[in-house]
Amino acid sequence: MEQLFNKLDEVYEEIVAIRRHLHQHPELSFEETNTANYIATYHEELGHQVRTGVGGNGVLAYLKGDKPGPTVALRADFDALPIQEQTDVPFKSVNEGVMHACGHDGHTATLLGLAKVLNSMKSEIEGTVVFLHQHAEELPPGGAIAMIEDGCLEGVDVIFGTHLQAQKTLGEIGYRVGPLQAAPDRFDITIQGKGGHGAAPHETKDSIVIGGQLIGNLQQIVSRRVDPLESAVVSVCNFEAKNPYNVIADTATLTGTVRTFKEDIRTFIEQEIERVVKGTCLVSDASYEYTYTRGYPTTVNHKEETEFVAGLAKSVPGVEAVNETEPIMGGEDFSYYLQKVKGTFFFTGARNPEWEEAYPHHHPKFDLDERALLIAAKVLGAATLQYMKTGTKVEVSAEV
Amino acid sequence: MEQLFNKLDEVYEEIVAIRRHLHQHPELSFEETNTANYIATYHEELGHQVRTGVGGNGVLAYLKGDKPGPTVALRADFDALPIQEQTDVPFKSVNEGVMHACGHDGHTATLLGLAKVLNSMKSEIEGTVVFLHQHAEELPPGGAIAMIEDGCLEGVDVIFGTHLQAQKTLGEIGYRVGPLQAAPDRFDITIQGKGGHGAAPHETKDSIVIGGQLIGNLQQIVSRRVDPLESAVVSVCNFEAKNPYNVIADTATLTGTVRTFKEDIRTFIEQEIERVVKGTCLVSDASYEYTYTRGYPTTVNHKEETEFVAGLAKSVPGVEAVNETEPIMGGEDFSYYLQKVKGTFFFTGARNPEWEEAYPHHHPKFDLDERALLIAAKVLGAATLQYMKTGTKVEVSAEV
Amino acid sequence: MEQLFNKLDEVYEEIVAIRRHLHQHPELSFEETNTANYIATYHEELGHQVRTGVGGNGVLAYLKGDKPGPTVALRADFDALPIQEQTDVPFKSVNEGVMHACGHDGHTATLLGLAKVLNSMKSEIEGTVVFLHQHAEELPPGGAIAMIEDGCLEGVDVIFGTHLQAQKTLGEIGYRVGPLQAAPDRFDITIQGKGGHGAAPHETKDSIVIGGQLIGNLQQIVSRRVDPLESAVVSVCNFEAKNPYNVIADTATLTGTVRTFKEDIRTFIEQEIERVVKGTCLVSDASYEYTYTRGYPTTVNHKEETEFVAGLAKSVPGVEAVNETEPIMGGEDFSYYLQKVKGTFFFTGARNPEWEEAYPHHHPKFDLDERALLIAAKVLGAATLQYMKTGTKVEVSAEV
Amino acid sequence: MEQLFNKLDEVYEEIVAIRRHLHQHPELSFEETNTANYIATYHEELGHQVRTGVGGNGVLAYLKGDKPGPTVALRADFDALPIQEQTDVPFKSVNEGVMHACGHDGHTATLLGLAKVLNSMKSEIEGTVVFLHQHAEELPPGGAIAMIEDGCLEGVDVIFGTHLQAQKTLGEIGYRVGPLQAAPDRFDITIQGKGGHGAAPHETKDSIVIGGQLIGNLQQIVSRRVDPLESAVVSVCNFEAKNPYNVIADTATLTGTVRTFKEDIRTFIEQEIERVVKGTCLVSDASYEYTYTRGYPTTVNHKEETEFVAGLAKSVPGVEAVNETEPIMGGEDFSYYLQKVKGTFFFTGARNPEWEEAYPHHHPKFDLDERALLIAAKVLGAATLQYMKTGTKVEVSAEV
Repeated sequence: MEQLFNKLDEVYEEIVAIRRHLHQHPELSFEETNTANYIATYHEELGHQVRTGVGGNGVLAYLKGDKPGPTVALRADFDALPIQEQTDVPFKSVNEGVMHACGHDGHTATLLGLAKVLNSMKSEIEGTVVFLHQHAEELPPGGAIAMIEDGCLEGVDVIFGTHLQAQKTLGEIGYRVGPLQAAPDRFDITIQGKGGHGAAPHETKDSIVIGGQLIGNLQQIVSRRVDPLESAVVSVCNFEAKNPYNVIADTATLTGTVRTFKEDIRTFIEQEIERVVKGTCLVSDASYEYTYTRGYPTTVNHKEETEFVAGLAKSVPGVEAVNETEPIMGGEDFSYYLQKVKGTFFFTGARNPEWEEAYPHHHPKFDLDERALLIAAKVLGAATLQYMKTGTKVEVSAEV
Repeated sequence: MEQLFNKLDEVYEEIVAIRRHLHQHPELSFEETNTANYIATYHEELGHQVRTGVGGNGVLAYLKGDKPGPTVALRADFDALPIQEQTDVPFKSVNEGVMHACGHDGHTATLLGLAKVLNSMKSEIEGTVVFLHQHAEELPPGGAIAMIEDGCLEGVDVIFGTHLQAQKTLGEIGYRVGPLQAAPDRFDITIQGKGGHGAAPHETKDSIVIGGQLIGNLQQIVSRRVDPLESAVVSVCNFEAKNPYNVIADTATLTGTVRTFKEDIRTFIEQEIERVVKGTCLVSDASYEYTYTRGYPTTVNHKEETEFVAGLAKSVPGVEAVNETEPIMGGEDFSYYLQKVKGTFFFTGARNPEWEEAYPHHHPKFDLDERALLIAAKVLGAATLQYMKTGTKVEVSAEV
Repeated sequence: MEQLFNKLDEVYEEIVAIRRHLHQHPELSFEETNTANYIATYHEELGHQVRTGVGGNGVLAYLKGDKPGPTVALRADFDALPIQEQTDVPFKSVNEGVMHACGHDGHTATLLGLAKVLNSMKSEIEGTVVFLHQHAEELPPGGAIAMIEDGCLEGVDVIFGTHLQAQKTLGEIGYRVGPLQAAPDRFDITIQGKGGHGAAPHETKDSIVIGGQLIGNLQQIVSRRVDPLESAVVSVCNFEAKNPYNVIADTATLTGTVRTFKEDIRTFIEQEIERVVKGTCLVSDASYEYTYTRGYPTTVNHKEETEFVAGLAKSVPGVEAVNETEPIMGGEDFSYYLQKVKGTFFFTGARNPEWEEAYPHHHPKFDLDERALLIAAKVLGAATLQYMKTGTKVEVSAEV
Repeated sequence: MEQLFNKLDEVYEEIVAIRRHLHQHPELSFEETNTANYIATYHEELGHQVRTGVGGNGVLAYLKGDKPGPTVALRADFDALPIQEQTDVPFKSVNEGVMHACGHDGHTATLLGLAKVLNSMKSEIEGTVVFLHQHAEELPPGGAIAMIEDGCLEGVDVIFGTHLQAQKTLGEIGYRVGPLQAAPDRFDITIQGKGGHGAAPHETKDSIVIGGQLIGNLQQIVSRRVDPLESAVVSVCNFEAKNPYNVIADTATLTGTVRTFKEDIRTFIEQEIERVVKGTCLVSDASYEYTYTRGYPTTVNHKEETEFVAGLAKSVPGVEAVNETEPIMGGEDFSYYLQKVKGTFFFTGARNPEWEEAYPHHHPKFDLDERALLIAAKVLGAATLQYMKTGTKVEVSAEV
């Protein structure tokens, strides 16, 4: 283990260089072909067996250790966002309107650096490491589900992944057994009223008035119908009924998002929205269309694997705190892997302790403390080696 | 006609005395037996044929003129209100909690005084006068409909009536062809949700939340669904959902009133309320009961009879202005008579010009200028005599 | 008068030809220069004194009769609408996206035909006729106010105007003393909340939720705060809050129209909207911008002039009914003239009795029965000549 | 410890007898004097030092062990509810309209039985046991705060308490570190509009319409303003605006409850309600009164003491499961003790496993499986003896 940490310290500068290269050349979800090539080449040069075009732009690389043992998958996503970067870093994005504003550049650099180190320890590796480089995490339906369908989890016993997190300080690892990230769904409602002259409302069915009532009525799903001990969000984010100032709206469209952690609540809200829409339209004798589109499932960490990683993390150099983290309402398609195999997804603090404030993920000035990449690599590497030796049955101190 | 006016001037003091007697001894709707006796006795002493107990407490008195001619009905109502009088007049109500706060005492005194005068002119009367003393105008279903069913309009060719009005100045006569007073209906809604603990809303169907939405949704009937050129009112006046502070309401009851002038709008609103209730309850999967109770119909004056009275009124001593009046949203069961026979209902100004402000009808300090009774008697008397002579085909000046 | 009617019959074909020419070459409000030239040329050829460029594209032509007398202005508007014509008439608009879909082509043709006839009767004209050809009626601030500022009413004693109306049958004249057309105002509201992630509503001030409440709250202005005997409309016609499905709205904009007939109610509603906006924003600690833009004033017809025209119209050949019309909630900048001089604006039925249904004004298939132009010309001509003789003091039959 | 369990088994019948006696003679909060006497007498007969009238009807009894050590307080509440019992048990309440429908009879019997046993083990007791018999738990401000002010916690090192719970099965112990029961607050709102006739809404400020908007607006506090990861409830439970069907409401009163677990959210909601009320009233130019009354604080269990009891409970005979319990939104004034001293409050399952369904607490048919009293006594007794020996530093198995 010590060897692992030392070797990672040695490749740290390379990890940073890779991250900066990727940061400078970001690519949008489902369009990240150059990045995929870059990754594939890197692994090929290490001598790994590489499979490209997995479920789209996904890349799989396999490191078969010299000793037999389980198969551990490590996942890093590599797509960027449609955001115009506003930082002053020297490795600022050269692609207009595209930016690595969520840290996926860091995830990939971490995994490549770790691959190099593990490759150099091949003789001691007791099993197989799958480097699972996933495209398109930012844009549903996401790359994970397609990569799974394309076989990326075949033979995999356990999967680990992390997200660098600017809201947590460098040195902190956040773990959580059970639901970690919400299921981010989408709904689309079209109200079909009857347009007409603004001076003659009685000849119309005013879609804006109906829409107004609908927005209000939807509030009660969270305020009245979901158990207050559970978490749920129903947000109408888009409302459009564009007309001249004196023409009553024929239609209005509402689009929004639902966030839940539990499948039964998710299904309940999907149905309740329709009831609310139906009743509200009936009030005005209007009709409607309603579509509910499920995004990623809730990301549910497995208990043993999570406690295993959390326990290990404590003894990783650079880790100063291992905390149970609050779940977050944002979604993550790592969830699909966890539906298929055991594993855990954890957060690696990436905020420079000297920053007064960190820009949130998806912000045009988003940045992270690159030392976090080293910590992430060490935790993932330690988890891989330890798991191969003992599975999750390691001696963990009681207070985790 | 001049004879009529002079004779009325002579009985004015008696009219006032009668009004004060009635004012001092008011009786509630459907309980006004003493008043009915008083009226019957008065007519019997004049030698009129009298019929009592008409449709309840109603009284009919007949004056058959010496000459043949049409039958003219004159109506005065005589019930009082459940109000504790707060005036300082010497003839203040002696009946606790009962008050002539709407002027029906004046209507009756006017009609009795006029009866005395017309009786004295019997030899010149060319037809029959029906003195129609109606009970229970204030309380639906009212006395009119029962008196009609009991035959009070048999043989009647035309009917005239007036309401003393404290909002119009003494000397003013207000007339209106067509709708004069609204149809005052009532609705009752019970929302049946599902009660429960205030801390566990998700186990309930919150009747108060549903009721709140319903109140809001009902506003759009007037604001969006009724032609803005038409008049309509939908008021929720009573809302009850009485519970401890921590128990969510199982049911909520709403009661209110609807006011309209046109039958199609009335029926439309009756139906729309149910649609709004139905849709609103559907939003929360609750059920409801809905009752719509029609009050008096709209009071619709006949064109020729109205213009006839308005024209005549101009030459009545004491009348200083004959104006087309705005309709009023309050109801009046004179409407039933006008559904059966031709006629008109008009307003006689009764506000002392020196009063800065008149208390509204139904106010505990309501009062009226008694000189209005004389004017009312003269207009009704003139209309009776003229109608018997010429019907409504009198030479009326063009500007009416 | 008979001479007038006969001569108009003779120019009817020319009137139709003019109307069709104008229909084929429509011009948008404030851009109607060719039409103005056409009109000016027509009058110049008749030998009238012509003033062009009045308050913009307005044209004034003066016919001074041989005898002294009052000055009568006759107004016709001549702008068209931004509508793509969908009729099959042979004289269909040749200007892409522009159409005379409101009948202003007919107004102008009527006035030019009448001008020709009156010019031929010059020796008998007792006063001066001002042919007031107004541009830009369809688009506030409209042409009337600018033409008035530019002196178009100087010396004018009375003004008459008509609107051809497809909802009234050919042969019908609609008049109304007092308010005829509503004041069409506009309001713009911007709600400034605070945007944010759809999964984190507690960090935002949700402008869509605020907007929804606002729409509901605005309903009560008409349903609760305006006298039910008065007419008023408050319509939110446009609501925009465009965002991705998972981003809570930072701002929302609402645009709508207010329609009233009385100045005090208009001002009241202008103020009430602001109170409602202010309170609604306070509920969510948001801020707002509110602009209320007054359109044309209410069109208020003068009593004597209106009754004068209505009375005269009865004896005009082709007129089959002269009815008091309901007011309409749409606006008209003839209102400005009536604020300055006496006069009246009336409706001339233009629906072919054989049409099952007439397309509404502003509809791409709008059409009118051209015989209405002749009737309009006769009524306007008769009013002009009679007014010059007797003013409004003509013997009118009682039933008007 | 084994001795303790055996002795408790021996007094089990007496515990049941005490519980039935108390059940039959329930007394309302703050009126429970007979119950207090009964308790005091019982302890006096055991030879305990007894203090009565503590903070009202509270009773304190002290058992000083023969060996030195810490002071452990055990709390049982003893008031009943204003409910008419509807069970068929032979020991049914003899006090009309008063019932032990929450299990406080069981709490008290448990504590008295345990007192008897501990008293018999006096020679081995290493410290002092305070039997804290609290009155008035059901009715804010509750008895706890007054007893604390009256010194009941003086010298106390730790406090333990339990609630018998009909929703958990016999044999289950529910524990929770941190917030266990919510803070149950109350709010009262009076809307002062302006009443008037149902037919003339424009002369009023309709308190029912304002109230309806307020109910809707209050929903958004939970749906939009509180972090979805936190729990909060805002329920309007009472709405009164009682009027005749045709009189618009002058005032409306709303009463409700707020439930929270965290002080900052509690304070935030208290303030937000006022903002919502203020803005909503401003919309209609109405005024209001608003009172927010804090009930008990959140019951927050201390970590070490909770894990200590949970760990111990596993080895108590009769305990079949020790589960982390969900917090509950109902309040409990044990919270006050936990603000002053370390300790924990836990749930003891009391539902007979053969019952298909248990009636909820506060239900007229509420009942419990009396064997739960024995289990509760054993857990409390074990915690007392163990704490005196080792404090919370006992060897606890890792999986708690």
